[in-house]
Amino acid sequence: MGDPPAIFAANLRRLREERGWSQERLAHESDLNPSHVAKIERTEREPGVRTITKLCKALGIPASELFDGIDGR
Amino acid sequence: MGDPPAIFAANLRRLREERGWSQERLAHESDLNPSHVAKIERTEREPGVRTITKLCKALGIPASELFDGIDGR
Repeated sequence: MGDPPAIFAANLRRLREERGWSQERLAHESDLNPSHVAKIERTEREPGVRTITKLCKALGIPASELFDGIDGR
Repeated sequence: MGDPPAIFAANLRRLREERGWSQERLAHESDLNPSHVAKIERTEREPGVRTITKLCKALGIPASELFDGIDGR
């Protein structure tokens, strides 16, 4: 099993790409800065509760989808 | 709807208390510092992916339970 932030970043990228969204589109939908989204996907920034919430709302998913493969299940 | 970190903190406290665990017990089970757990529950610190993962594993829950009431559902 990989590093939690790396798995989180891979899940985020996959969910974004499944929607055909650019990083800029995801940033717009989630009210985040595009460079912030890029840094999360590169694991250069570890998102907190507030940012994770924005991403989940933009993608229309429960948080567990972003933690798929790393959480307590 | 309240502030995401405040709802997260309330969920954490509820899930911990349902198990009859002290903050010290949760800290031990999740390999976190007891003061870190206390600060999360007081919303003085916003946990990131790594800390959320540790809490989920200790509690044996998917991340969505900690985001209950705030995430994209």
